Amino acid sequence: MTTRRRVTRHDTGTGLTTARPDSLAVEEPLEVRLSGKAFTVTMRTPGHDIDLALGFLVGEGVLGAADDVVTVRSLDAAVDIVLAPHVPPPDPSLERHVYTSSACGVCGSASLEAVDKVARFDVSTDTRRLVPRFLAGLPDRLRERQAAFDSTGGLHAAGLFDPAGELVVVREDVGRHNAVDKVVGWALREGQVPLRGHVLQVSGRASFELVQKARLAGIPVLAAVSAPSSLAVELADDAGMTLVGFSRGGRFTVYTRPDRVDLPDPA
Amino acid sequence: MTTRRRVTRHDTGTGLTTARPDSLAVEEPLEVRLSGKAFTVTMRTPGHDIDLALGFLVGEGVLGAADDVVTVRSLDAAVDIVLAPHVPPPDPSLERHVYTSSACGVCGSASLEAVDKVARFDVSTDTRRLVPRFLAGLPDRLRERQAAFDSTGGLHAAGLFDPAGELVVVREDVGRHNAVDKVVGWALREGQVPLRGHVLQVSGRASFELVQKARLAGIPVLAAVSAPSSLAVELADDAGMTLVGFSRGGRFTVYTRPDRVDLPDPA
Repeated sequence: MTTRRRVTRHDTGTGLTTARPDSLAVEEPLEVRLSGKAFTVTMRTPGHDIDLALGFLVGEGVLGAADDVVTVRSLDAAVDIVLAPHVPPPDPSLERHVYTSSACGVCGSASLEAVDKVARFDVSTDTRRLVPRFLAGLPDRLRERQAAFDSTGGLHAAGLFDPAGELVVVREDVGRHNAVDKVVGWALREGQVPLRGHVLQVSGRASFELVQKARLAGIPVLAAVSAPSSLAVELADDAGMTLVGFSRGGRFTVYTRPDRVDLPDPA
Repeated sequence: MTTRRRVTRHDTGTGLTTARPDSLAVEEPLEVRLSGKAFTVTMRTPGHDIDLALGFLVGEGVLGAADDVVTVRSLDAAVDIVLAPHVPPPDPSLERHVYTSSACGVCGSASLEAVDKVARFDVSTDTRRLVPRFLAGLPDRLRERQAAFDSTGGLHAAGLFDPAGELVVVREDVGRHNAVDKVVGWALREGQVPLRGHVLQVSGRASFELVQKARLAGIPVLAAVSAPSSLAVELADDAGMTLVGFSRGGRFTVYTRPDRVDLPDPA
């Protein structure tokens, strides 16, 4: 996941220059193929490539269970997946977000509707409840398991906490979305999708796509260390997902479905 | 660029819960069209949409000068661009990173070659020189101009410094790549591409795509506040671009072409 390279450092305070080897997070392309045909290419940190490909396809609404897949083959820089006969292959002309005719076909509401259309699990009825101290402690628990982070400072992380509060899987990647795909792909292989009662903690921000990926995996709670975007909040609201942001230093902000968190009444 | 929404905050230290309105960075889809035909859709923060579309097409190797474009029309959630007759439209079958046959067609080297193929400006011969204190001061100068950042904590920024060291344009977006596209699109409209002697400072990390965008705009120096990835460094090396990372607190790390920085000899 990391590679070494000679770099030059300078400190304007001391005026000192040092030349020394430094660790870099590896970024390399991976092609996801469906029955040998290129479907997408993502820049990712190598490792857990099969999980990345499977999780990506869950997030696109193509896969929803382990038996939706017949075979998976991992090549050098590609993963080839053969879908089960009962799984409709994604129609490229219906590609998400790409609407060909009217101007109003592309907007936040259309994006929410597009996700609604492919989502197969309802997270709004998930009865998971959260204790504030548990929620506030997740970023530190994730960080402790981020093996590569400290050496490069360049990897995003995603960690999945099960209904018992155990951290069951952590994945890191140069791409925020890839780390989540790797977690979801792992869960699909384990036969755990939909991830009822689970909490997904991510190291960075919460974008629309991250909420979409959580929703399509059936995860009822997404917590981010940094800010969510407006559309991320709208989609979480629409889905009935609990979205938490700015979770750091014992504080957090709940953007949607705060009823799942056991909070005292607001002051 | 921002919107307000009621949120619930909790501090486990004090046990206090507050409900109040909070600012969110707006994220909405934008469709880029070529002569009415959908080319791509990106999630972006509204504003400077035309620059975003133009800059995106520079980064894809489609545009290299203002007169490559005949008309630009901004719609509600789309920008439609008509290319000049002398500009070859991008061939979807040759889409970057998507190679259909062999496994070795997708790898870091193939990605570097793909960028080489479309790059029309040589940044390796750019004679720009940099004083360490100037370079170390760029993140603060960028931050001062980040109007929306402080209210949402959710926007990436990109700032362009001209050969005289002046900050000529700052753009913010929920997407790191979009902020750079908006800067490059502005420069294209101003007739300033290739951006010889310029420095691009970004608020986050430096990925392969960010280096690619800088290279295709002819920018010889890219500086990031956080870590670069391995492939970002390889591409910068290949292009002869100066890539700076971890630029914060008066310190910075030079990954490639340190000869452009007036540094004392390493200790």
